[in-house]
Amino acid sequence: MKVEDYIDKIVTNAKKASQVMSTASSSLKNTALNQMADNITCNKAALMAENEKDIKAAEEAGLSSAMIDRLRLTDSRIEDMAEGIKQVINLTDPVGEIMEELVRPNGLQIKKVRVPIGVITIIYESRPNVTADAASLCLKTGNATILRGGKESIHSNIAIYNQISSALEKTGLDKNAIQVIETTDREAVDYLLKADEYVDLVIPRGGEGLIRNVVENSTIPVIKHYKGVCHTYVDEYADLDMAGNICLNAKVQRPGTCNAMETMLVHREIAEAFLPDVSKAMSDAGVELRGCEKSREILPDIKQASEEDWPTEYLEKILSVKVVASIDEAIEHITNYGSAHSDAIITENTTNAKKFTDEVDSSSVYVNASTRFTDGFEFGMGAEIGISTDKLHARGPMGLNELTSYKYIVYGNGQIRE
Amino acid sequence: MKVEDYIDKIVTNAKKASQVMSTASSSLKNTALNQMADNITCNKAALMAENEKDIKAAEEAGLSSAMIDRLRLTDSRIEDMAEGIKQVINLTDPVGEIMEELVRPNGLQIKKVRVPIGVITIIYESRPNVTADAASLCLKTGNATILRGGKESIHSNIAIYNQISSALEKTGLDKNAIQVIETTDREAVDYLLKADEYVDLVIPRGGEGLIRNVVENSTIPVIKHYKGVCHTYVDEYADLDMAGNICLNAKVQRPGTCNAMETMLVHREIAEAFLPDVSKAMSDAGVELRGCEKSREILPDIKQASEEDWPTEYLEKILSVKVVASIDEAIEHITNYGSAHSDAIITENTTNAKKFTDEVDSSSVYVNASTRFTDGFEFGMGAEIGISTDKLHARGPMGLNELTSYKYIVYGNGQIRE
Repeated sequence: MKVEDYIDKIVTNAKKASQVMSTASSSLKNTALNQMADNITCNKAALMAENEKDIKAAEEAGLSSAMIDRLRLTDSRIEDMAEGIKQVINLTDPVGEIMEELVRPNGLQIKKVRVPIGVITIIYESRPNVTADAASLCLKTGNATILRGGKESIHSNIAIYNQISSALEKTGLDKNAIQVIETTDREAVDYLLKADEYVDLVIPRGGEGLIRNVVENSTIPVIKHYKGVCHTYVDEYADLDMAGNICLNAKVQRPGTCNAMETMLVHREIAEAFLPDVSKAMSDAGVELRGCEKSREILPDIKQASEEDWPTEYLEKILSVKVVASIDEAIEHITNYGSAHSDAIITENTTNAKKFTDEVDSSSVYVNASTRFTDGFEFGMGAEIGISTDKLHARGPMGLNELTSYKYIVYGNGQIRE
Repeated sequence: MKVEDYIDKIVTNAKKASQVMSTASSSLKNTALNQMADNITCNKAALMAENEKDIKAAEEAGLSSAMIDRLRLTDSRIEDMAEGIKQVINLTDPVGEIMEELVRPNGLQIKKVRVPIGVITIIYESRPNVTADAASLCLKTGNATILRGGKESIHSNIAIYNQISSALEKTGLDKNAIQVIETTDREAVDYLLKADEYVDLVIPRGGEGLIRNVVENSTIPVIKHYKGVCHTYVDEYADLDMAGNICLNAKVQRPGTCNAMETMLVHREIAEAFLPDVSKAMSDAGVELRGCEKSREILPDIKQASEEDWPTEYLEKILSVKVVASIDEAIEHITNYGSAHSDAIITENTTNAKKFTDEVDSSSVYVNASTRFTDGFEFGMGAEIGISTDKLHARGPMGLNELTSYKYIVYGNGQIRE
């Protein structure tokens, strides 16, 4: 089959399935999720056998050990995947929620009601667990989903998908409610990204190149889950012990995540009191510091930061450090170099706290806490499909509500417009 | 100046202005709006003189009288424009509203707070009043705005913009909070649509060609204000008098609007009782009917509808009519040919009403009322920038709230992630 015909079939099937899914009851969707989890736990051996093909190909292609590790499905990772699906069952189904309700002077009764978005495409890199995670969240919210994972995980993804698909059939739901693109052909993605008549949303998850490609080629609305160049600004009125703890946590607790701190901004008035201790703690934790000139006057042993450091998402144990003359300079630095993801101020001064939360234009702005909390679970959403760095539709952690749209249902008794 | 340099200047100025605007107080924004309205009323003669240049060029270019009429600024239209701005002053400023608030078990206090979107570009056809309408709504919501109107209205738009700009300066706000693209060069738009680092949202308003061009060329998120192929389905359980009144209103009260009915679907059980009277009323109102075969058995004098009629937005006194065998056939027709804008069912049967509102996937779904009510004013929003036919961020009438985004502001007292 030609790739265009293949994608046409996928998207038309998805659209049809989305119509059925939009009115599926919560209990039916939960039954399907339960069956999905069971299928996955009962077929571990088959999943691992298919995964082994991907691992072997990755080893032959000379992929990094970090990438191969992300790709690998172990017994406990498969258990976690099933457990993740089961947790989604316990979340409240947002579909049908009445978000607003009013009666107009002419008697029209207007309800704003939560509905599924429709058809969602997720484009992601080679992490097989995303296949199950994304599928379960989109299913719970009544959407039809088209999944396109990285080519390195193709066998694993198809194997997981087969379990999902059989669960949908067993439950009596349209099996096209969740589909996986089974070709690794790049053209398939480019063609899919133009299917705006059928697909309502594309969520790209991965590196800068992947996201840029989606944004440039898609005629479908995109919600980007882009990089996190997160800052912590230690104000002149900071509690320095608290600041040290928070900075260390934001940098080292899990450096490979998008909400980890990449740059520490320090007010010059407290730089001499603050930097030596935190620098030692960072070094002890294996963090390499790269500093501006002023910070190197205090910490002469650290490397010089270059202009390229400021906008960089290291995702590892490297931290750039800058001494600033004022809160305004800190905010300006964040505005110029940040990625509008998560930024924190450490201060005991309420005026400065308010100034920072007002003026820093990021999805999540913190006062006296670690940026590591930007996360659907930590925000009480119960789950997340990712963290949006966009400002439209969803910003910050995206949970179940953010996978829905709404419609207005208007009841009248013969009203006409004058 | 090269067009790229010109647009670069516009978008960087807009981004800077958006930072100032995001924290501007409601009273300062209202002062600017008041000054804008005053400037416009006090400079009617100058506005009309510039408008006359556009009218003359349009006449020389042989534009239709309808287009020339839309282009014309009269004394009363300028008054209306100023009045429109004054009405925006009285609306509640949504910026700063706390949309949700929670305290997590670890003591983190999370607030979801409404903020401006940032920089919004509006691309529209030759209706000079949109320049003032859009500018005032975006200003009220703390956004910076870049306006690009149709080339036929360029002199009028610049003249209106000059009044707006001087009002901003007089108020002490950054005059780049509202900018008009002063070139009619098409390349300027294509280049602008790639400025995703600076512009957060594009709203295209106009015909299918304009919108399609924006969707295909933009790397900035787009909210489409697309056509309205609206249906009224007269169910077998309809009150036929009510149905006749509603259908007539939905078709003829203002046929040129996107929420006017274009297709009437009639259940076969009541077609013979319903169609003759409504057909006569429509004819008396000057409406041309185009019917399916079954409707022509009852109304032999009406034209035959072709396959092309069903997806057509006439925007004039033409109505396509189809007799259907069931509510399912009606919903299927709407799904296949509708534009997901506004659709109505006329019925006294609650099961059918619920089925219709559940299964019709449109921004606004009506029971026993005219589709003409899909409108920000009629929905109690106080204003509208348009009607979104998209499902992301905003669906249906877009008022002030829909011109905002949100951010999470998180207060802690030293929380770190375990």
